[in-house]
Amino acid sequence: MSRVKLIQVKEGVLAENAQQAETVRQRLRSSGTLLLNLMASPGAGKTSLILETIRVLGDQWRIGVIEADLDSSVDAERVAEAGVRATQLTTGGLCHLDASMVAQGLEALGEEDLDLIILENVGNLVCPAEFDTGAHVSAMILSLPEGDDKPRKYPLMFSACQALVINKTDYAALADFDTEAVREGVRRLNPDMAVIPLSCRNGEGVADWTDWLEDRFRKEIGPRNPS
Amino acid sequence: MSRVKLIQVKEGVLAENAQQAETVRQRLRSSGTLLLNLMASPGAGKTSLILETIRVLGDQWRIGVIEADLDSSVDAERVAEAGVRATQLTTGGLCHLDASMVAQGLEALGEEDLDLIILENVGNLVCPAEFDTGAHVSAMILSLPEGDDKPRKYPLMFSACQALVINKTDYAALADFDTEAVREGVRRLNPDMAVIPLSCRNGEGVADWTDWLEDRFRKEIGPRNPS
Repeated sequence: MSRVKLIQVKEGVLAENAQQAETVRQRLRSSGTLLLNLMASPGAGKTSLILETIRVLGDQWRIGVIEADLDSSVDAERVAEAGVRATQLTTGGLCHLDASMVAQGLEALGEEDLDLIILENVGNLVCPAEFDTGAHVSAMILSLPEGDDKPRKYPLMFSACQALVINKTDYAALADFDTEAVREGVRRLNPDMAVIPLSCRNGEGVADWTDWLEDRFRKEIGPRNPS
Repeated sequence: MSRVKLIQVKEGVLAENAQQAETVRQRLRSSGTLLLNLMASPGAGKTSLILETIRVLGDQWRIGVIEADLDSSVDAERVAEAGVRATQLTTGGLCHLDASMVAQGLEALGEEDLDLIILENVGNLVCPAEFDTGAHVSAMILSLPEGDDKPRKYPLMFSACQALVINKTDYAALADFDTEAVREGVRRLNPDMAVIPLSCRNGEGVADWTDWLEDRFRKEIGPRNPS
C-alpha cells in the first residue's frame, strides 16, 4: 500500500473518465445543448453568477442547472427559486465532479429542450481542474477579496478554463487587488483565456459574461434555435 | 478499474497516514513543540494570520513555518522576510498535506529549538480535512467575503478543527455576513470549537487568537520554557 499505488489507480480512473466525458459532450452537442462547467473557491460567487446568467439570458435561453455540493442542497434551492430546472448532486465528501456524476446529474435534470446547462462544481480550486466533466467549456471565478496571486498558486485551474470571471469588483475600494497582475499571470499560463471583470452584486460587467457565453455557444454548438 | 478500487486504495493510504501522524505528534510533544495545522480556502488569509501570529508572539515564542503550495514558493518567502525559519513544500498538484509530507517538511525546517511550528496547508476546504497531518491542533479560517453558509457546505472541515478564525472583519460594512448564523452552524457540528473573529489587516481580535494558541500550548504540551 503506497501513494504510488494510489496514483496508478487514479490514472486508470482518469482515463476511464475521459471516455465517459467525451460521450456526454458529443451527445449534448448533437442535441444542441451547451454544457458549461463553472469552478471556483468556496464563496467566490458561483451560485450568484448562475443567478445573474439566468436574470440576463433566462428570457431567451432555456437553462438548466446541476449543482454539486459535498452535503447540502442550499444552492439548488436558490437556483430553482429563480425559475429554472435545477438538480442537486451531493458528492458525499468527494472534492470534485467527474463525468459519470455529471451523467447522473443530466439524467436527474432531464437534458431535453435546454440550450444551456450550467454545472456548478464543488467549491475548490484544486481537484475539479483535474477531471473532465464532459463540459464543452469551463470557466472559473476569482473574487477580489481572494487576492491577485492566485494564477501563481493554482496554475492548473487557470490552464484548464477558457474564461476567468473576476467577481466582486464592487469590493475594489477595500481589496488590495491588482487586476493587471492577474492578467499577466493569465497571459503566461493560458493566453487564450478570456478575462471578464464583473460584479454579481451590482450587475456591472455581467453583459460581457453573457456575450462570451453566446459566442461560445455559436462556436461549440452552432446557431441557436429560437425557443 | 473503478472508483470503488480507488476508494479502497485510499482507505489503506489513510490508515498508513494515521500511524505516521501519531509518530510525528508524539515526537514533537516530547520535544516541547506545538504543531498547528492551518487550513482555509484560497485567499481567506492563512499567510496573513501567520504573519500576525509572528508579529504578536515572535518576541516570546520561537516559531517555524512550513508552507504548502501546489507549485510556488510565494508564501515561504513572505514568512521568511518576517524573520522566522520557514520552508516550502510543493505538493506538485496534490490537494492536501499528509503526515509523510509533514515529516519531510519538518526535516527541511529543522524542528529543534522551536515552541511552535505552523503548517500552512493547501488552500482548500475539502481534502485537507480528511488527512491527519500529525498536528496537535487544527484551525480553519473563514473570511467574511466568502459568506456565512460554509458550515452547511463544508461540514467535515468545520468538524475537524478546534478553532474557527473569522477573518476580514474589516469587510463587515460590505459583506452580507451573519456571524450568528455561522456560530449556530458551528454549535451544531462541533460545539467545542472556538470561534474567533479578527482582522489581519487592522489587528482587531488577533490577541484572542494568540490567547487561544497559548491556552492550547499549555493543554497539549505543558508549561512553556522561556526562550
